[in-house]
Amino acid sequence: MSQIPRVLVAPTPQPLVVEAVRQAGGEVVSDAADATALVWLEWDDKEGIRDVLRPEMTWVQLPAAGVDAWLELGVIDAARTWTTASDAFAHPVAEHALALLLATARKLPDAARATSWDRSAVVGTSLRGKTVAIIGAGGIGRALMGMLAPLGVEVIAVNRSGRAVEGAARTLPTERRSEAWAAADAVVLSAPATPDTLRMIDADALAAFRPGALLVNIARGTMVDADALLHALDAGTLGAAALDVTDPEPLPDGHPLWHHPRVLVTPHTATPNDVIVPTIAALVGENVARLRDGRELRGVVEIERGY
Amino acid sequence: MSQIPRVLVAPTPQPLVVEAVRQAGGEVVSDAADATALVWLEWDDKEGIRDVLRPEMTWVQLPAAGVDAWLELGVIDAARTWTTASDAFAHPVAEHALALLLATARKLPDAARATSWDRSAVVGTSLRGKTVAIIGAGGIGRALMGMLAPLGVEVIAVNRSGRAVEGAARTLPTERRSEAWAAADAVVLSAPATPDTLRMIDADALAAFRPGALLVNIARGTMVDADALLHALDAGTLGAAALDVTDPEPLPDGHPLWHHPRVLVTPHTATPNDVIVPTIAALVGENVARLRDGRELRGVVEIERGY
Repeated sequence: MSQIPRVLVAPTPQPLVVEAVRQAGGEVVSDAADATALVWLEWDDKEGIRDVLRPEMTWVQLPAAGVDAWLELGVIDAARTWTTASDAFAHPVAEHALALLLATARKLPDAARATSWDRSAVVGTSLRGKTVAIIGAGGIGRALMGMLAPLGVEVIAVNRSGRAVEGAARTLPTERRSEAWAAADAVVLSAPATPDTLRMIDADALAAFRPGALLVNIARGTMVDADALLHALDAGTLGAAALDVTDPEPLPDGHPLWHHPRVLVTPHTATPNDVIVPTIAALVGENVARLRDGRELRGVVEIERGY
Repeated sequence: MSQIPRVLVAPTPQPLVVEAVRQAGGEVVSDAADATALVWLEWDDKEGIRDVLRPEMTWVQLPAAGVDAWLELGVIDAARTWTTASDAFAHPVAEHALALLLATARKLPDAARATSWDRSAVVGTSLRGKTVAIIGAGGIGRALMGMLAPLGVEVIAVNRSGRAVEGAARTLPTERRSEAWAAADAVVLSAPATPDTLRMIDADALAAFRPGALLVNIARGTMVDADALLHALDAGTLGAAALDVTDPEPLPDGHPLWHHPRVLVTPHTATPNDVIVPTIAALVGENVARLRDGRELRGVVEIERGY
């Protein structure tokens, strides 16, 4: 059913997003009471959205790729359509995963901390001919696969169905993901946060990793048991870890992950600030146009699936 | 003219290389006096090769991508064919350039040095939609272009002839390379070391760079004026620099490049150790086969060109 949405952009009427709504043929309103749709641009105060949400709003666009926090708080209800920015952020997040993967393979964190010319301490390895397991072959995982293709990497993809992912040498269903641990030189976590992925990288998983394997997490910190991770690093079974997400997050000062020589932490910066607003603006424009045309929206949250 | 080469692998008869010569149908000899070809596997003592070189050797394989040091010492003569490992190392070196480019864009060196969660200090940018100038569109530059393609980067290629490089949005001849400075968000140096590229990144060049631009050097340290570089970083005109090569090299302890917050130095590790020998072995095998078949060798040095 097509409609001209009356969109509230809140809590701040970000000009680029407002303009995108208008360009796509939507109407922009400034009062929640007049709105049939909401674009919510607040990342920290997850519950603030309750103050503006009205029953008349049939579509809410959230500003993040992962909406697990809003789901857990019960903010996301079945009374309307909710969309995430997951697809839209797939490219920049995959680029960050690639940066972290190459940085750990090439020992760039060690180089960044070095103050003396010592090749033996800093020389890494090439990814060519290596096997990378991508846990969660959604938008981010598939974008990463495209970026890895010219590097001569063999990819093992893990997804819910196990249906073959194009470009992957092998695809495993979630319940067989542990087969990927021993087969991969590097493991990238790009799955949505669900009960099934909670602490999936625990002591057992890490014990099955190849000696010297790399771990990259750009998904959610809660997927990795940090104590087990530190233990595996010290035991020498894990080569290095690069984490854009941590548990807890923000990672508190003095946490051992800040000081481990083979850990690189980026403070949830996979989607750089200068990318966020233009990307969301483009996505909002697209979804407004889809709504007008009566087409399915992009990035619809499936509550029962959990993302 | 085809021949079965009698190859000396020196100063050490590296088993993988010896095996590659045999597999390709060459003969392996252990005395320089019996050899018609030399595979030279010594990186530090550049003149040591003089002790084993004999007039009967019609082909010498050197173990490096850049052979400027051997050329300057007059080791490389016109009496025989000399080949470099330039093509063979193109992929790993390009991979390192990609790693350095992504690391500086994503501020990973800052993250590696951080001990506290501070997004504002560490958030970088995405390369998508950015322009990267690749100075020297030989094997390394072209391999890098292939790796940048899925990242949505626009490439300006600079080569001697200015003949359009496939995949580049624009190709400039060397004499017009300064046009690339103001047009690029990042500049990658992947040219051979010649009098023409000596100190090409000087104060004038850096002054023409876009504010906040990134510089990656995986070619030769002598192409960059380090004083001018440090000045441009402090003046804020240059965003960050990642250098796999320095001048002098090794970079001495206490050099300001070791301590600048926006500089990342890797100690000439673009071709990782574990890649060097297998890659040279494969190249030697290929060149032995080409020699047997009377075909042109791969990576032939042109003395008058300087690489």
